[in-house]
Amino acid sequence: MATEPARLTAKGRATRDRIVGVASELMLTQGVARTTIEDIQREASVSASQLYHYFADKHALVHAVIERQTTDVLGFQRLALDRLDSFAALQEWRDMAVAVMEQRNCTGGCPLGTLASELAETDPAARDELATSFGRWEKLLRDGLAAMRTRGELVPEADPDRLALALLAAVQGGLLLSQTRRDSLPLEVALDTSIAYVRTFAPSNWGSGQRVG
Amino acid sequence: MATEPARLTAKGRATRDRIVGVASELMLTQGVARTTIEDIQREASVSASQLYHYFADKHALVHAVIERQTTDVLGFQRLALDRLDSFAALQEWRDMAVAVMEQRNCTGGCPLGTLASELAETDPAARDELATSFGRWEKLLRDGLAAMRTRGELVPEADPDRLALALLAAVQGGLLLSQTRRDSLPLEVALDTSIAYVRTFAPSNWGSGQRVG
Repeated sequence: MATEPARLTAKGRATRDRIVGVASELMLTQGVARTTIEDIQREASVSASQLYHYFADKHALVHAVIERQTTDVLGFQRLALDRLDSFAALQEWRDMAVAVMEQRNCTGGCPLGTLASELAETDPAARDELATSFGRWEKLLRDGLAAMRTRGELVPEADPDRLALALLAAVQGGLLLSQTRRDSLPLEVALDTSIAYVRTFAPSNWGSGQRVG
Repeated sequence: MATEPARLTAKGRATRDRIVGVASELMLTQGVARTTIEDIQREASVSASQLYHYFADKHALVHAVIERQTTDVLGFQRLALDRLDSFAALQEWRDMAVAVMEQRNCTGGCPLGTLASELAETDPAARDELATSFGRWEKLLRDGLAAMRTRGELVPEADPDRLALALLAAVQGGLLLSQTRRDSLPLEVALDTSIAYVRTFAPSNWGSGQRVG
């Protein structure tokens, strides 16, 4: 059994953190399959016995990487989404996502999306964890949209569940296409159009468009 | 240099096809990194010398898999999209995509998306090829939307470039989330909302929604 972070000393936590950081970097750039325990050990400058003190096996490392990436991604969302009480906040969230992607020249996709795509068919536990992570992200979006509806910034016909899922799919698809094309345009268009769709549920815009099936 | 398909006899083409089929299956389910030449050789029941007669190395196999998957995915799109001259056709395309995903119990994502996510940071040639494949897919969508606009089924303000990219991102994001959740709902919602957004550009729905920035 590997040692849980809660039981570690400050120094132990720092070492564990460093290992998870290195594992994240390697697994996200070269893939989980291509990343060996030895790679991580070498890059993190730890001995095998140190590494195994914290992580029983590669599965435990993958689990820790998913946990870390979930915290990071949701933390990033919260920067904008704790204040998701307006279209301005949604726009800011969009701008932040595009800026981050441009900063790294469109290399790398969403860490959760990348891990999900690689692991969905080979690691059922990882797939489950990632589904939960996406669910938490979706909930952040849904809660914001629901608050907007409650305050009347969206009409009662707006469905926060569906709109949140549409926004999350747009981010994921947009990031994957931007990563593949090395161009932020797909992400921009995916977010702009899905936010524009949310906007059709603003009282001032609410018209015939949504009622035609 | 590996032998190009055009130079092969019918029997040679059949063998090559079988190898590409096996390589596709393995690379898409277990990942490119986890798939060895030996795996493919064994599963396709060919000797090493036979395999190397057709493919110089693993890169050549990856290239052939991308080519095959692009043909398959675009062929599938064309089933619906050659007739993308109405919202009914878009709806049919959506229904087909959802039906296929349900048929396989939401296992596997888009072959092109899966390959792009795994290879974007490790195989620049594959990334380029996949960007081209996505571009061809986007063009199918764009041509259909442009035709609808020409015929007045979309208002002149509709931008086929942006709408096509939004639809493609929605499919990619929706498939990834559906694969991860093993639930077709994300794909359904992503496609329904992005088609609903296209519908806001139909002359009968064209209202204030699109003009509020």
